[in-house]
Amino acid sequence: MEIGSASGDKAGFFIQGRRRLNALPVKFKAKVAEMARNIKKVGQDDPRRVIHSLKVGAALALVSMLYYYQPLYCNFGVTAMWAIMTVVVVFEFSVGATLGKGLNRGMATLLASALAVGAHHLANLSGRRVEPILLGSFVFLQATISTFLRFFPNIKARYDYGLLVFILTFSLISVSGFRDDEILELAYKRVSTIMIGGCACVVISIVVCPVWAGEDLHNLIALDIEKLGNFLEEAYSEKVTFTGFGGEYFKSTGEAETKDDKKYLEGYKSVLDSKTSEESLANFAAWEPGHGRFQFRHPWKQYLKVATLARECACRIESLNGYLNADIQVSSEVRSRTQEACTNMSIESGKALKELSLAIKKMVQPSSADSHIENAKSAAKNLKSLLKSGLWEDIDVLKVIPGITVASILDEVVKFTENIAESVHELASKAQFESVEPTVSPEKLHSGQPQNSKSTQMVNRFHFVVNVRESTMAATPRENSSAPKANKHNMEV
Amino acid sequence: MEIGSASGDKAGFFIQGRRRLNALPVKFKAKVAEMARNIKKVGQDDPRRVIHSLKVGAALALVSMLYYYQPLYCNFGVTAMWAIMTVVVVFEFSVGATLGKGLNRGMATLLASALAVGAHHLANLSGRRVEPILLGSFVFLQATISTFLRFFPNIKARYDYGLLVFILTFSLISVSGFRDDEILELAYKRVSTIMIGGCACVVISIVVCPVWAGEDLHNLIALDIEKLGNFLEEAYSEKVTFTGFGGEYFKSTGEAETKDDKKYLEGYKSVLDSKTSEESLANFAAWEPGHGRFQFRHPWKQYLKVATLARECACRIESLNGYLNADIQVSSEVRSRTQEACTNMSIESGKALKELSLAIKKMVQPSSADSHIENAKSAAKNLKSLLKSGLWEDIDVLKVIPGITVASILDEVVKFTENIAESVHELASKAQFESVEPTVSPEKLHSGQPQNSKSTQMVNRFHFVVNVRESTMAATPRENSSAPKANKHNMEV
Repeated sequence: MEIGSASGDKAGFFIQGRRRLNALPVKFKAKVAEMARNIKKVGQDDPRRVIHSLKVGAALALVSMLYYYQPLYCNFGVTAMWAIMTVVVVFEFSVGATLGKGLNRGMATLLASALAVGAHHLANLSGRRVEPILLGSFVFLQATISTFLRFFPNIKARYDYGLLVFILTFSLISVSGFRDDEILELAYKRVSTIMIGGCACVVISIVVCPVWAGEDLHNLIALDIEKLGNFLEEAYSEKVTFTGFGGEYFKSTGEAETKDDKKYLEGYKSVLDSKTSEESLANFAAWEPGHGRFQFRHPWKQYLKVATLARECACRIESLNGYLNADIQVSSEVRSRTQEACTNMSIESGKALKELSLAIKKMVQPSSADSHIENAKSAAKNLKSLLKSGLWEDIDVLKVIPGITVASILDEVVKFTENIAESVHELASKAQFESVEPTVSPEKLHSGQPQNSKSTQMVNRFHFVVNVRESTMAATPRENSSAPKANKHNMEV
Repeated sequence: MEIGSASGDKAGFFIQGRRRLNALPVKFKAKVAEMARNIKKVGQDDPRRVIHSLKVGAALALVSMLYYYQPLYCNFGVTAMWAIMTVVVVFEFSVGATLGKGLNRGMATLLASALAVGAHHLANLSGRRVEPILLGSFVFLQATISTFLRFFPNIKARYDYGLLVFILTFSLISVSGFRDDEILELAYKRVSTIMIGGCACVVISIVVCPVWAGEDLHNLIALDIEKLGNFLEEAYSEKVTFTGFGGEYFKSTGEAETKDDKKYLEGYKSVLDSKTSEESLANFAAWEPGHGRFQFRHPWKQYLKVATLARECACRIESLNGYLNADIQVSSEVRSRTQEACTNMSIESGKALKELSLAIKKMVQPSSADSHIENAKSAAKNLKSLLKSGLWEDIDVLKVIPGITVASILDEVVKFTENIAESVHELASKAQFESVEPTVSPEKLHSGQPQNSKSTQMVNRFHFVVNVRESTMAATPRENSSAPKANKHNMEV
């Protein structure tokens, strides 16, 4: 629009315009290439997404064909489209979400249909004049109450969709200006077509490559704890080396690698924001029947407790990361004096967390983590006694502070690791995880001091025990859930 | 079922049964009372929920009546129920969510109808045999692609519901076994009834007591920062007094009060988990037109940046809280030496955060926080020089550690406060917040040292300036959004 400001030089304007025009296909190509990369990434991040999309397409094509062919259409008429609608709305990524929505929709439709037929009948009795007023106030009342109920956190978590369908069905059926017999037919048709659609969804989602929300939650919590362990076991030792050798470490390895490393180490950051997705997974999981290694009333709530502790621990690790990343001058004396104990605290609690994660993944008692926790605790004790043996006279206090802070936060992290271990133990007993050879534990209790060689031996032995046991179990959860062997195992547990 | 295990004593059994039966009404009463309390709480927590429920009820009753009366019913027939359906599904709590869903539904229906009519026509041309195969594969293809697209985070955030409606409409219209002219009519009816329902929702949600997601986001971020400030300004001084006077402080005030206090102080915990709700509010806000003090392209994304920093700061405060709550023996010498500086750091950054929160709430430039940040920084400097002036020879190091750690974390908190201030400044310039009298700032820049009386004077003066300005603005956001005065103000900004 700013013609006035365009000062002469028409030729230049056209050249610029042409250049832009020529650049368009290049830009377009770049956009398409980026889109292709994006598509590939979304698919590769979780290949089950592709399968889910195909499942939805197939379910919809199937139900559509039922609708398209005449015999069925004659039976249900236009109401048959509710079957299609149900498939589109109910088919969710995980079995739990699909089942939850399907049951919500089915139950709500049944209940609302019954009530609406009653309301319609009542209104009909009251005469032609009062009828619309009565019907209107019924609709108003039920919509107001149901909408208000949707604000209750407990109800919202499990029955939100049911209330929505309740409002919908009640309004639809109660106000449809039909005669009584027609309305009964309408209610019957709505209920039955929704059942057809819902059953198609549930059956396809369970039979074809099922995605279990419970299993996802289980794996997510194990991964969360593993990420914390990764940071503690590897970041700390690396960063200490880094500050120790004054940047030598990172210089020797390539730039790209260190970036990848950093991303890997900062995996714990995702733990900080995982609350919502974990809660919804736990809600979905509660709808799921027993599957694979999980029974019907698996203690899903306990996973959320573990996750809360993991998040609090991640908060401390976030603080720790701030100190490790900062280029703070720590006096070499303090560093050399505290390095061993701090490294041990970090590595041992990291190992403990990883063992806990492994125990969750394999669903065995997490007793293998106990020795690492003991080691971490005794390392913390060592650190304290080291610090106590005062040699602090001629030290620049400012250079001591970061070191002491890191040590202090690490002490907190060790405590949180213990808390996490406790709650994983609780989970193991509630979910009746398989126990490992009891002969290992008495030895473990004696190993108060961090005797690395000994504990490594023990861990190796433990791994052997687990591996032997495992041969009776399928290796990965996904294989597990369909294998008959796994079901047998499930019955044993 | 366990009849075998019930060993004799029938009379006892009956008495027990009767007792339980007698207890039933009592239990029922307790349940009802609890439910009533719950209902009251949900309503009191946010009275707009009650209004929203009434709005939904009214909208639905209105549209139902349109459906019920014959003239309209004759025009649209059974498809008129889509209007009811649209109201139930589209009417959300905030205007942004309603508008977003409504636009998604409208656009998706238009697009899918057009495509479906085309697909149906194409399939019709191909002859009776190939037609169902072609139609089925169309449905399969579009459902698969659309479902896959819903996994893209950007698309999911804004167009998830649109894709759902697209799948639904395309399937419904393309497979409906009608002749071509009938299908055009079906498409037309679906589009127009959905428009009726959608418009009813949008109009009612904007005209009757509107709930703006943007305003909610704005207030939520301000509240988040205020909560952090509350903790820093009050918890720290209290806790230090607490440890200082050995529990005297809490003994003098009542038990109940301290519990309430604690809840009040731990308000920051909610900041840690607010990411998801803030992101969805920002998404909804992007759909909203200009309202009250907010223009159409208000920088909602910047609020998320502020929130991220606030969350990271809350993480540090969580660590801090752990130390303040622990009954750690800090040597009295260290405490007395660091207390003043630490208290200043905490209180000044708390005040700075509260000023930032106030500036966001009132939408003025947050320059009043700068002096507090300067004070906090110089307190941190003081602390460092205090610690440097070594008097550490005969101190039990273990008793020094918690004090030093707290000081060190406080130092981090001060840095984060500065970061938050920076990003609030960015927000203020992006959203063109009103600037306060520039004469205040030069004075402020000179106050490097924490001279409390001076800075309080300045704050008072600043408040005066703000208050004078404010008299041209409505006091609370809600009053603001409907007052014509506020709109005038909005145009000025």
